[in-house]
Amino acid sequence: MTRHLLDIEHLARADIASLLARAGELAAGASCASRAGTVANLFLEPSTRTRVSFQMAARRLGLDVVNIEQQHSSASKGESLADTARTLAAMGVRAIVLRHPEDFAASELAAALAGAEIGIVNAGDGQHAHPSQALLDAATLAHAGFEWSGLKLAIVGDIRHSRVARSDIALLSRLGAAEIRIAGPAEFMPDPDELPEAMRMPDIDTALDGIDALICLRIQRERMAASGYLDGAAFHQRWGLTADRLAAMPDRARFLHPGPVNRGVEIADGLVDSPRALILEQVRIGVHLRTALFEWLIDAA
Amino acid sequence: MTRHLLDIEHLARADIASLLARAGELAAGASCASRAGTVANLFLEPSTRTRVSFQMAARRLGLDVVNIEQQHSSASKGESLADTARTLAAMGVRAIVLRHPEDFAASELAAALAGAEIGIVNAGDGQHAHPSQALLDAATLAHAGFEWSGLKLAIVGDIRHSRVARSDIALLSRLGAAEIRIAGPAEFMPDPDELPEAMRMPDIDTALDGIDALICLRIQRERMAASGYLDGAAFHQRWGLTADRLAAMPDRARFLHPGPVNRGVEIADGLVDSPRALILEQVRIGVHLRTALFEWLIDAA
Amino acid sequence: MTRHLLDIEHLARADIASLLARAGELAAGASCASRAGTVANLFLEPSTRTRVSFQMAARRLGLDVVNIEQQHSSASKGESLADTARTLAAMGVRAIVLRHPEDFAASELAAALAGAEIGIVNAGDGQHAHPSQALLDAATLAHAGFEWSGLKLAIVGDIRHSRVARSDIALLSRLGAAEIRIAGPAEFMPDPDELPEAMRMPDIDTALDGIDALICLRIQRERMAASGYLDGAAFHQRWGLTADRLAAMPDRARFLHPGPVNRGVEIADGLVDSPRALILEQVRIGVHLRTALFEWLIDAA
Repeated sequence: MTRHLLDIEHLARADIASLLARAGELAAGASCASRAGTVANLFLEPSTRTRVSFQMAARRLGLDVVNIEQQHSSASKGESLADTARTLAAMGVRAIVLRHPEDFAASELAAALAGAEIGIVNAGDGQHAHPSQALLDAATLAHAGFEWSGLKLAIVGDIRHSRVARSDIALLSRLGAAEIRIAGPAEFMPDPDELPEAMRMPDIDTALDGIDALICLRIQRERMAASGYLDGAAFHQRWGLTADRLAAMPDRARFLHPGPVNRGVEIADGLVDSPRALILEQVRIGVHLRTALFEWLIDAA
Repeated sequence: MTRHLLDIEHLARADIASLLARAGELAAGASCASRAGTVANLFLEPSTRTRVSFQMAARRLGLDVVNIEQQHSSASKGESLADTARTLAAMGVRAIVLRHPEDFAASELAAALAGAEIGIVNAGDGQHAHPSQALLDAATLAHAGFEWSGLKLAIVGDIRHSRVARSDIALLSRLGAAEIRIAGPAEFMPDPDELPEAMRMPDIDTALDGIDALICLRIQRERMAASGYLDGAAFHQRWGLTADRLAAMPDRARFLHPGPVNRGVEIADGLVDSPRALILEQVRIGVHLRTALFEWLIDAA
Repeated sequence: MTRHLLDIEHLARADIASLLARAGELAAGASCASRAGTVANLFLEPSTRTRVSFQMAARRLGLDVVNIEQQHSSASKGESLADTARTLAAMGVRAIVLRHPEDFAASELAAALAGAEIGIVNAGDGQHAHPSQALLDAATLAHAGFEWSGLKLAIVGDIRHSRVARSDIALLSRLGAAEIRIAGPAEFMPDPDELPEAMRMPDIDTALDGIDALICLRIQRERMAASGYLDGAAFHQRWGLTADRLAAMPDRARFLHPGPVNRGVEIADGLVDSPRALILEQVRIGVHLRTALFEWLIDAA
């Protein structure tokens, strides 16, 4: 059976549980056995950190890695993504880690490949989903000692355009988080009928009240103008994590960011490296989660 | 002795036979022993699929791979190709897989390096030659059960600008194919004195009559205008493989394409994945052929 | 303890001695044990040959290699270099080989990362330093049989903009070279108070008189106009190594070049491959020196 990781919604509850448990074991020092095979990082949108994280995870298992980075427009030779994937499968590639600028690219690819023996991992498609990021966020929270029942969490910033927010909300609500709050500039909030699992908060201070964890989202610089704020400093004053806001959060509360952080915009420069930050822990556990993911994909085949 | 694969014409008959036989063994599941060493993919013209195929083959033998992808103009630092190759040889690289936009680039490089202990593999140079593609085409036909004596084959499309066609014709005629036919728009036919081994056919239907195998060539989109056809659909109607034309071919006949296919241009969209197509089989066997090629290169040194 | 290679000045005398000795052993055929871990080539300025040399060295030790090549401006997502490095460290990368267009980029990065367990190797920063090149130049001279006491050496060309010249002079003067001479067009000479270890010579013929070794520097084509010479030929006549000038050098004298050579500019075309040239030997020993460097970095951690 060929497994895919397309989004959180299509992942069985048992698979979520086993991926998170295995990532926790690996983060705590468990070893892993080598596997044979090759995986391809097919990135039609640049992302060095995500590509490297998948590469480190694959190599840890002894898997070979083929990196393919292209401009999306430069599917220039006009080959469809499905034909590229079928070609890689025919060469013996066992899984494709796909980064794509368009919503649902990973799901559509998996559907087009029905029957082919190649796994598809969605490493971020448009504004739709980034499931491995959500899984590593959950694994990071679990490793930091949080339990789902009773967990109050806020996601702040550009929710509207964020595949991270969508996958985080889908996963944490399935895991049973007590409260998932979202907050951000009006232009950055999702449509009213979207994301019913999340509580919409009018401002960041209300959103942070009594929470256990805050996920700050990255603001794309090119969207700043459209946000209604003049610049990063203005955004920070209204929607950023400041020292005062961190002080007002419960002592147990921690904050996350999918990276890279715009220092002084989403988070005050001096706080990024604070002990309350789980940002580098997300990166560290991300490699473990992706290692667990490749084990799950390859062993199913 | 340092071996090169520069074109079909310079390959000894015994080497052709052993490369094809070994590719067939590997395609049928034979294992291969590991080799030590590093090969460099030096691509001055982009081609993800060819680069990945060589990389998969090298890794299967345990060889390390260095990927170097440059714009040809960006031999920008002004270093000659021969100096780049001598530098790689001095670093310990054992073979260079060269893709180059200019005719005879691989042969000229090998000549410039006389005495250096580094093998050159021509992975496509201008419109001149693509010998590993021809070898994998032949290995695919052999694996599909065709025998050279009596084989009638047609190559259709842009013959004039095709290194694949030139290498295929050179190889298949040396192997003893009974008939090699070529057909295409007048602007895409080679000069009258070129390719005397091939029979020129006036139209595709005549070319396909009674054949065992058809090799469709890729049309460069930028050459469509110069072809005398308005667009891909017009080309397809006159020179493409349609369902009717496939039905008119003998039952035993199969078709190939070096990829990537322009669906609906060279081949009707619905036929690309038909059981009569050997296109993905070419890709699969291509890795085996290139594995055999690296064995042959490295073991000779 | 985390080790870095930032420039020659910060390298302990004992470390210089052990790196050169180990490079000599490896160049003479010594074997090396495998290490576990991953190193990242982080190149914000293109340099295929330096990147490949580090990659070959790392792979020889069994280290995995992550290649990250970016335009410097395209720290485009606005992530600081230090945040990139912290992210790589969190992923488990053990050393970063950094190429950067700005002076002191490597030192500033190491300072920003104080406490992080990741080694920084300066693979060339602006016009400041290129310490692994200087070390391989010294290892090449030593392997060719030269001894530091009594060594008379000239560096000719664009001294002013050359990180290679600065690191070579720093290293060779620390090693005790008897005379280090520099010469070049007035516009290419360093400021009067810079490089006091070097003797300034008025012309190339005086600079070459009685020397043991000549290091020719690469001229950037884009600086030729500013050099006061019309073109490469004019530069060559006045400042290049010609057959006559080589004949006037002592028989024992050899010449080096960091590569790639502009043939006919810094060195007459026909001399580049002469037995007096150590240019490919620099490349060969460069891999050994960098292997020694990775051993030294990884084993310290």
